[in-house]
Amino acid sequence: MALIVQKYGGTSVANPERIKSLAARVARYKALGHQIVVVVSAMSGETNRLISLAKEIMQDPDPRELDVMVSTGEQVTIGMTALALMELGIKAKSYTGTQVKILTDNAHTKARILSIDEHNIKQDLDDGYVVVVAGFQGVDANGNITTLGRGGSDTTGVALAAALKADECQIYTDVDGVYTTDPRVVPEARRLNKITFEEMLELASQGSKVLQIRSVEFAGKYKVKLRVLSSFEEEGDGTLITFEEDNTMEQPVISGIAFNRDEAKITVLGVPDKPGIAYQILGPIAEANVDVDMIIQNTGADGTTDFTFTVHKNEMNKALSILRDKVQGHIGAREISGDDKIAKVSIVGVGMRSHVGIASQMFRTLAEEGINIQMISTSEIKIAVVVDEKYLELAVRVLHKAFELEAA
Amino acid sequence: MALIVQKYGGTSVANPERIKSLAARVARYKALGHQIVVVVSAMSGETNRLISLAKEIMQDPDPRELDVMVSTGEQVTIGMTALALMELGIKAKSYTGTQVKILTDNAHTKARILSIDEHNIKQDLDDGYVVVVAGFQGVDANGNITTLGRGGSDTTGVALAAALKADECQIYTDVDGVYTTDPRVVPEARRLNKITFEEMLELASQGSKVLQIRSVEFAGKYKVKLRVLSSFEEEGDGTLITFEEDNTMEQPVISGIAFNRDEAKITVLGVPDKPGIAYQILGPIAEANVDVDMIIQNTGADGTTDFTFTVHKNEMNKALSILRDKVQGHIGAREISGDDKIAKVSIVGVGMRSHVGIASQMFRTLAEEGINIQMISTSEIKIAVVVDEKYLELAVRVLHKAFELEAA
Repeated sequence: MALIVQKYGGTSVANPERIKSLAARVARYKALGHQIVVVVSAMSGETNRLISLAKEIMQDPDPRELDVMVSTGEQVTIGMTALALMELGIKAKSYTGTQVKILTDNAHTKARILSIDEHNIKQDLDDGYVVVVAGFQGVDANGNITTLGRGGSDTTGVALAAALKADECQIYTDVDGVYTTDPRVVPEARRLNKITFEEMLELASQGSKVLQIRSVEFAGKYKVKLRVLSSFEEEGDGTLITFEEDNTMEQPVISGIAFNRDEAKITVLGVPDKPGIAYQILGPIAEANVDVDMIIQNTGADGTTDFTFTVHKNEMNKALSILRDKVQGHIGAREISGDDKIAKVSIVGVGMRSHVGIASQMFRTLAEEGINIQMISTSEIKIAVVVDEKYLELAVRVLHKAFELEAA
Repeated sequence: MALIVQKYGGTSVANPERIKSLAARVARYKALGHQIVVVVSAMSGETNRLISLAKEIMQDPDPRELDVMVSTGEQVTIGMTALALMELGIKAKSYTGTQVKILTDNAHTKARILSIDEHNIKQDLDDGYVVVVAGFQGVDANGNITTLGRGGSDTTGVALAAALKADECQIYTDVDGVYTTDPRVVPEARRLNKITFEEMLELASQGSKVLQIRSVEFAGKYKVKLRVLSSFEEEGDGTLITFEEDNTMEQPVISGIAFNRDEAKITVLGVPDKPGIAYQILGPIAEANVDVDMIIQNTGADGTTDFTFTVHKNEMNKALSILRDKVQGHIGAREISGDDKIAKVSIVGVGMRSHVGIASQMFRTLAEEGINIQMISTSEIKIAVVVDEKYLELAVRVLHKAFELEAA
């Protein structure tokens, strides 16, 4: 007998039929003797409908009141899910974030969980109930309803699993696990049975949209065993996210290939090479709340340096204006340019720690296809390159093949 | 400066435009220096939509979970209403029933209010906020969400007015007050500027559907000054419901005429006239949870008695079966019959206490039109008669004229 937290997203509760099929799955786990906590999102489309209603009244809605409205989406789903379980003869009880109480800070629309009172849920589980909890929402110390921001239901699931010391937190999505790369780009992409937490973090932050990054971080912090599964398939064990590295010989060097089309590159050319240049360039960018991803600085022979970094495409023009208005004259840069026709491709794997030559194999593979590398950034378990956007699919495909990630 | 509770029903918050117009009205009251608490229902149609969703899952939904779902209707409206007020530059803050805390018993879907914690609302009012409260909902001692049943938003308004010792509770509806009778039947019907609580109670229970009976009883118990107004008209003072009788000469004898097409008549003929007959007949009816309205017993010359009572039309067949199966043989009644082609017409007025001859004037008026009276029931401020359904409109019209209730 295990205590399992199962989290179902918006498409898994999109309508009464889907909710009934969710309930049938929970019933199968319950029949095996497990204690189950179900965390549900709002029915798909519902959150957007509620936000639209709010915006019809106020273009930039007050966040406290927006949370009051938006949190009703999950509240409807928990009631429906509890009813669907009862209809199958299973004792079930729903909880809003307030009822649990999932205590958060007061940062409306992007609150962070401070603590979870697990007492009542534990009591209900011991009394044989399946407990159904609204994802994405909490309550602050003054009783105000808060939401955790988009995708926050994953975080609710992981946080509940941590608070309840659950044996496993299962995240049901519309994919059946984490793949070596996006199967829409590489049809041979293979589902991973297991992936380390750090690899998952890199894959998620690099644009593999399976899990919300925050929930993965949370799972890592509290050592929650996380499993990604499909809510549309009866069979399959999904992908388990582990916190220990597997030291067996079978361990592949590379676990997966992530990519991202959302970034733009900004280059500051011909800056006099003096201490403090990086701060002078990036300080005003950070003050304007523009997130920076990769940063590269190369010193040239003539005593000047070229400084390149990437931002989200939507913020390229904002960043360019800031640099031209506030920075260029000040630091004496020769030229400032932006390019949003780029893509980032990363190879990820804890195995590369103990293998040499991974980077050179990656660069050779790309060179053989005539793909020019514009930027390189590395971490212990990842090598990311920026290439021309038009080469994205080709780069992912040849790397997938070069590192033998195809299905056996 | 007064403290005013304003309650708006579903049609008054049916869409963002209506909510904006509601906010504009609140703004005008606020500009006069009043403190305002707004109580809102769900957008019209929303409660039914949520009930339907629940029924798609479970035909007879568990009441606790149904309340979880249905209460989201008002929760969305309070957020929208607070936003609409903010958009007009007014400080506003919404409260769910749980947040207020409107403590109820645990009778889900028909809970009763036990107490209201007015502390936070008072503080917000003193800080210059308009406070927006979700009608129809509360929370039980264990933190479960409850609802007060259909129309319960009126009760929320009155209960809040009582707890806050408000100067007035204004109920905004789609009519502009209480009329001498239904203007669809008698176009000359006149809006009453003032009506006593007892008259209102009789008019409401007799089928004038302006206010929910429970809220009127509540207002009477806590001496809340209640005013019915139209949310679709800018002008007009509506109808004030008072708790003192006006002893001026102008006091009309009759305040209004109520009617009801929803009842059916059941007659038990030729019952031996012995003590305990009424209980033997009505006991099994009450046990089956069938509500009885009028009851009449006439003793005949032959030592038998005829016993007649009315029930809701929907329950006539159920009542007839009970009587035929369990009662008729037992008490030796000659015949049991039902008639659902009847209507009840009542004249209501505190003035009739001090005037003789009101009943005879009513009966003469009906006789002159050839309308046969099948049953009569009287109280201190009301005389009700049952007539053939086809005479309903005629009876209401001639009585309205006979008692000079037309607009001046």
